[in-house]
Amino acid sequence: MFNEVFMRHLFGRDAVEKMFSDYVSFRTVSSDPTALPEHEKCVAWLQATLQSCGASVEIWRGEGAPILLATLPGRPGSPTLLIYNHYDVQPVDPIAEWRTDPFKAEIAGDLLYARGAQDNKGQSLFALLALKAMQGTLPPCHIKLLIEGEEENGSTSLLKLLQEKKEALQADHTMIIDVGMRKRSIPAITLGMRGIVALTVTFRGPSTDLHSGLYGGIIENPLHALVNVLASLHAEDGSIGVSGFYNQVVMPSQEELSLLNLTADEADFTHITGQPFGGGERLFSPTVRNWLRPTLELNGIHGGYGGPGSKTVIPKEAVAKITCRLVPNQDPQQVAELVKAHILKRVPRGIVGEVVIHKGMGKAVRTSPNTSGVHALAQAMEKVWGTPPEYILDGASIPIAPLLQEASGGELLAWGIGLPSDNIHAPNEHIDFARIEKGFDTLLSTIEFLGDLR
Amino acid sequence: MFNEVFMRHLFGRDAVEKMFSDYVSFRTVSSDPTALPEHEKCVAWLQATLQSCGASVEIWRGEGAPILLATLPGRPGSPTLLIYNHYDVQPVDPIAEWRTDPFKAEIAGDLLYARGAQDNKGQSLFALLALKAMQGTLPPCHIKLLIEGEEENGSTSLLKLLQEKKEALQADHTMIIDVGMRKRSIPAITLGMRGIVALTVTFRGPSTDLHSGLYGGIIENPLHALVNVLASLHAEDGSIGVSGFYNQVVMPSQEELSLLNLTADEADFTHITGQPFGGGERLFSPTVRNWLRPTLELNGIHGGYGGPGSKTVIPKEAVAKITCRLVPNQDPQQVAELVKAHILKRVPRGIVGEVVIHKGMGKAVRTSPNTSGVHALAQAMEKVWGTPPEYILDGASIPIAPLLQEASGGELLAWGIGLPSDNIHAPNEHIDFARIEKGFDTLLSTIEFLGDLR
Repeated sequence: MFNEVFMRHLFGRDAVEKMFSDYVSFRTVSSDPTALPEHEKCVAWLQATLQSCGASVEIWRGEGAPILLATLPGRPGSPTLLIYNHYDVQPVDPIAEWRTDPFKAEIAGDLLYARGAQDNKGQSLFALLALKAMQGTLPPCHIKLLIEGEEENGSTSLLKLLQEKKEALQADHTMIIDVGMRKRSIPAITLGMRGIVALTVTFRGPSTDLHSGLYGGIIENPLHALVNVLASLHAEDGSIGVSGFYNQVVMPSQEELSLLNLTADEADFTHITGQPFGGGERLFSPTVRNWLRPTLELNGIHGGYGGPGSKTVIPKEAVAKITCRLVPNQDPQQVAELVKAHILKRVPRGIVGEVVIHKGMGKAVRTSPNTSGVHALAQAMEKVWGTPPEYILDGASIPIAPLLQEASGGELLAWGIGLPSDNIHAPNEHIDFARIEKGFDTLLSTIEFLGDLR
Repeated sequence: MFNEVFMRHLFGRDAVEKMFSDYVSFRTVSSDPTALPEHEKCVAWLQATLQSCGASVEIWRGEGAPILLATLPGRPGSPTLLIYNHYDVQPVDPIAEWRTDPFKAEIAGDLLYARGAQDNKGQSLFALLALKAMQGTLPPCHIKLLIEGEEENGSTSLLKLLQEKKEALQADHTMIIDVGMRKRSIPAITLGMRGIVALTVTFRGPSTDLHSGLYGGIIENPLHALVNVLASLHAEDGSIGVSGFYNQVVMPSQEELSLLNLTADEADFTHITGQPFGGGERLFSPTVRNWLRPTLELNGIHGGYGGPGSKTVIPKEAVAKITCRLVPNQDPQQVAELVKAHILKRVPRGIVGEVVIHKGMGKAVRTSPNTSGVHALAQAMEKVWGTPPEYILDGASIPIAPLLQEASGGELLAWGIGLPSDNIHAPNEHIDFARIEKGFDTLLSTIEFLGDLR
């Protein structure tokens, strides 16, 4: 068995630590346009690492961050497995909340802290280790490992290359290792993710910041206009107040619902968040709200003074960041246009409103539980964890997922070792060695079971 | 006449430039607790400057920035004039909007740019020059020049010392040179200012920033809660939606109204602000809204992501800065308590709301137009400008004004050379030499006329 080698024979803990530390040290924040040199360094490191495993590596370049495809041929006649990861990460702010440098691995017992520790360098790490484990063998699948660098910023380059690289991406199974499970002891297969579309709203008022005594009461304050409009985006019951927002929403079939465990553990939730369940549409239960209903969340508002004490200013402008999470049948562009129209219709005289719909939107995606890939993954999970997987959905989004599925022709298989408590997209992101090992074992076992199916 | 010496005999333009440049170079931002050493340096410079004019100088120290009182005795039996200025300034952010370093004087033709160029170092400068002009003479008034360093942050130290220093502050006339006029060609006497009280609102939600996909729809987002509550602070017609906010408001008498020029020049306004009149209570005309009605302005909102692109985060907290401007008979503490109660009553489950009422609040103030001081000032203005002054109110606030009037026992005289276009409290604040000279002339002439009255 491949998986018996991990940490015992082939890899020592030191080697895994070193690989993790190297990987997270690259400041690959894809929303930062000045970070491109870091992406180049990271891809050079990935290329060297994968070539040392005997994989052939090609680098694809678009306008943004380079994309890497490593291939490792399997036994003749074996199926092709395309594995997807990303090497880019979220911004690190608020930086003051990090207990350690986000780009320097901090290892404390079994825990590993860094930006990207889980999302997605930590989950990419065990895929790299799996290829290393298969070095010199003829695996039971042809392996293609695709690692892109713009997942957190709309996968723009990969999106543009999907058609051109269709041949190289062809696969029987398209595995996305960028999600997780609800509890450490129960593995999970993710049968669907929400879609996403992002908007930036800018309200501009006076041509310069003004004194709030001299001008208070006689000039439209962009902050007043913005809070009024943003407050109108939700109704009292927590539903989204944008006309037409729910028009395309299709709720799941009874068959789909019966497979899902829709219970929610509020104690677990409160342990992580410090708060009870809240937000969203009060009409629905928490798990339904998170998995099966769309949302509109404010991700940031900034305008005027924010320092100590007070500053008597009416700011010239204020900005809000919004993302909508979407469910099957909702079209991201159409939904964003509805939100944009709702906002612009409510801009008062004396304010110039601008709404930018960001590229890199994505539709919701669903996988059938009855595919050979899901069966192989479920078998592998039961073997590694000693318990069959839960079937879950994910409230988060991987916009490239449905498009990659379409371009590759492979059945979608989404899973991972993430836990809700990993602090992804937040300060002090972390993972642990135990789960990296479980991920490694599961991936190699799945490759075996996929080979057996043929 | 004293005023004939300015720039021709006693002062060259170079000397005035040098004095201005020195004064604005001190980074005396009173809301920044780390700026105290700058305050000390500035006061040492003021002390040396005033002592070189033959004034006796004492420095008062409380917990915050030091306060300076310079005295210059006048002819025996002459009245006492207390002049008030402040050497502290507003914060400089947004720093990127400044075309030059805010703490380095930039002189372009007749214009002088710097933080504090007008408010209040520029207006304090001509008082210093006036004392210099009177050096070696026995002026027709006893002069007391009080310069404090916390006006922009609540005058906390001076407030605490008012009773203890009552004797030293005794005066017949208490002149506040920290306001202005509506048009360059028409001098103005300010018969009243609005009061002020400031609040900081913090809404705390989850114990850490959370991923808006994984947690979107199941946790109360502090930004949602904040925009809902902030939007509720105003009604649709622009009036303040806080119950009881207007209860104490007293509108002016017909006599007071008849003295004021309540017209407003929208072309002038739009030239400065880039926008038409807006905001405030639509029921009232612009000048009434700005002078005679209270306001509640949002001065800042900050929470979550504000950089390029998007970040799918639900922030752990969000902060808003609020100031209320008050009219006669409104009590700042009582009004702030109403606003605080309104906000806290609307905090949803899952959010912890905190409202801090800042110290340094102040009541609105009014001066009778029928005092000997106002008559002397009006005479001086007509002499210097060649036209009698307008009687105006000021939408801004000098919280110390009513208390200083009370402690000194002097009739309040508020005036200055500020113009709405000076960008005070905003980037690229400026003044001009012509107005500094007019201010100097007016101050010296007023001193003469006040002496004649006795």
